[in-house]
Amino acid sequence: MTDTVAGLLREVADVGADPVRGGYTRPVYSSAELDLREWFTTHAARRGLEVETDHNGTLWAWHAPGGRRAGAVVTGSHLDSVPGGGAYDGPLGVASALVAFDLLAERGAAPERPRAIAVFGEEEGSRFGVACLGSRLMTGAIDPDRARALRDPDGHTFAEVAARHGLDPARIGPDAEALARIDAFVELHVEQGRGLVDLDRPIAVASSILGHGRWRVTLLGEGNHAGTTLMADRRDPMVAAGQLVVRIRDLARRHAGARATVGRLAPTPGGTNVIASRVDLWVDVRHPDDAVTTTLVDQIRQQADVVAAEEGCTASMVEESFSPTVDFDAHLRERLSRRLGNAPVLGTGAGHDAGVLKDHVPTAMLFVRNPTGVSHAPAEQVEDDDAEAGAAALADALAELLH
Amino acid sequence: MTDTVAGLLREVADVGADPVRGGYTRPVYSSAELDLREWFTTHAARRGLEVETDHNGTLWAWHAPGGRRAGAVVTGSHLDSVPGGGAYDGPLGVASALVAFDLLAERGAAPERPRAIAVFGEEEGSRFGVACLGSRLMTGAIDPDRARALRDPDGHTFAEVAARHGLDPARIGPDAEALARIDAFVELHVEQGRGLVDLDRPIAVASSILGHGRWRVTLLGEGNHAGTTLMADRRDPMVAAGQLVVRIRDLARRHAGARATVGRLAPTPGGTNVIASRVDLWVDVRHPDDAVTTTLVDQIRQQADVVAAEEGCTASMVEESFSPTVDFDAHLRERLSRRLGNAPVLGTGAGHDAGVLKDHVPTAMLFVRNPTGVSHAPAEQVEDDDAEAGAAALADALAELLH
Repeated sequence: MTDTVAGLLREVADVGADPVRGGYTRPVYSSAELDLREWFTTHAARRGLEVETDHNGTLWAWHAPGGRRAGAVVTGSHLDSVPGGGAYDGPLGVASALVAFDLLAERGAAPERPRAIAVFGEEEGSRFGVACLGSRLMTGAIDPDRARALRDPDGHTFAEVAARHGLDPARIGPDAEALARIDAFVELHVEQGRGLVDLDRPIAVASSILGHGRWRVTLLGEGNHAGTTLMADRRDPMVAAGQLVVRIRDLARRHAGARATVGRLAPTPGGTNVIASRVDLWVDVRHPDDAVTTTLVDQIRQQADVVAAEEGCTASMVEESFSPTVDFDAHLRERLSRRLGNAPVLGTGAGHDAGVLKDHVPTAMLFVRNPTGVSHAPAEQVEDDDAEAGAAALADALAELLH
Repeated sequence: MTDTVAGLLREVADVGADPVRGGYTRPVYSSAELDLREWFTTHAARRGLEVETDHNGTLWAWHAPGGRRAGAVVTGSHLDSVPGGGAYDGPLGVASALVAFDLLAERGAAPERPRAIAVFGEEEGSRFGVACLGSRLMTGAIDPDRARALRDPDGHTFAEVAARHGLDPARIGPDAEALARIDAFVELHVEQGRGLVDLDRPIAVASSILGHGRWRVTLLGEGNHAGTTLMADRRDPMVAAGQLVVRIRDLARRHAGARATVGRLAPTPGGTNVIASRVDLWVDVRHPDDAVTTTLVDQIRQQADVVAAEEGCTASMVEESFSPTVDFDAHLRERLSRRLGNAPVLGTGAGHDAGVLKDHVPTAMLFVRNPTGVSHAPAEQVEDDDAEAGAAALADALAELLH
């Protein structure tokens, strides 16, 4: 094998390219994400790995000597993207895992120890609204009934979509057996900030993931004709939504270190000449201190009620997901940092499957430098040399854990 | 023929029903709108009318004795809907035209005079952004090059979509010949307000259409990750959009009789965990005095620049369509009101193809009572008796004009 990370990613440079937003739109189980799964499967099979999809839709590629999977060291990431996302968020970790496995094979590293690459689905939550859905299902962090009932923007449930792609919706849920055979998990990911740029280093080890969650606010008013309804007679949830977006920003600014974002907002019915009857908007809230996140969310909920009442509308706010602040295992991260030439140890504001797994198995993350610091947008970037350095670092980290 | 208006509409009660928004979503050239065209074509052909689609995509069903079309009396409406619209806005006028033609045939009214039913496309502007696109093309009220380049939300141009449905994009444009042969045009439409409910009458004749237009505001900021980007580092166009929606409402309230609405708003890329890089929003502005509309639009444009600058964003605002206030021919409307038992004469805040045609041919409109007064929403309603009364009134109006 002489694959490079950059070369592997070039093979999928056209898959899911978004002509309107730029970048890539690869929601879970879209044709683009399915093409990427096929691409991964082909490369894994070519390496003699046993590829299978588990009952939650997670793809696994196993090196399982003598059929043994217990005590495995696992790496992996995801292939789905946000709408108009970058090329690296997810696929970099998957391509790097393939190349890292090549490097381990070249070195003859612990051939008797099982290892695997895992590809989780719906890490971004951009289709069904719950980020890290694949790892949450495996670990039991989401109730299977709730997962089955999640709906995508077209109104299809996760159960329907999963069934269409060969899963048995009744079997979706926790997988203690799969978790029990993992000795350690390492996820490599493009950095989603400028920490490594500022340090002039290519690779970091993760210290923590900022606590984060998403909440859906629904504002209900009265749909009517934009031309025939006097301003005084309106109960317009779009005006309430406008007020709320601004107040959310103002509330977040009052808490040092907090981030609150409305990046998705959908009026119903959404016609130019129609007063909306309903507006849904999603609030992403993050803070290192989970108590502050709770306070901020409560304040947002109060303001939603206030602005809705001012406009003769009603508001409701539902938590779609919440992940407390995650501190990765301190011993493991120090061990990997030393192994990687005293790589810097950095926190991140972004969520990851590794953050969901870390309560169940020893877990670490590696970050690869992103010269723009931009993430979830087409400008996200990784230099080819850094991508290869990342795969080499991942191989070193896996070798350390296989030792 | 023993068709009733209610019976005809029941035949298409499932076509384009919207399971998410409620009501109907039948954008021009969607499978739903094409099914409705087919339904109309079948019924028109069954009546011996000659059906054809002209080079702008308008459907015509002709009673043309001896092949003569000059001096025709024409009625009609549209089949496309806003997203989640009601069952009557458009199809009521088309179904009533079929029944009115039956009534004229039963009475043997002026069999030697040509008459036709016209079905215009994209009356709502809900797919390509320009309302009354079919009638604007016929009358030259929109430049054909501009029409060809209009894009739907998926990025397809009107030229591409028209070609896919059998039109020659090069031939799209003014049709002086078709206009010249129309002696008079009457459009029947569900009322989009409570005027007739308050008067306790089933049918009205239109006095005027409020001047109205739509403008697209584009706010550009910097897309980035919702978790890794500090509040202080953001240039978030969603916050600017929120401010603008509220200010538009406040500005409209300052001008008596003005209506300004933001019913459609689309963040790009639109992910929950992504700060938007761009927000497009559409403003629908209406006022009886076109000078006030111009002033209000200028004020909105200024505020767009102000809120964008406050958020480190930029704003642009483009007119997508504008129709001045239309007063229908006073002589014609009085004549029809008398003929219809002194039917009340009411204005409307909604745009119609009749408003586009009225500068070119003598034009009138009839309104049918809507018990809810709601429009562009599933609650829009017409009682069966009123629907039949509408068709009878339309037959009387056409007989008056054929006289």
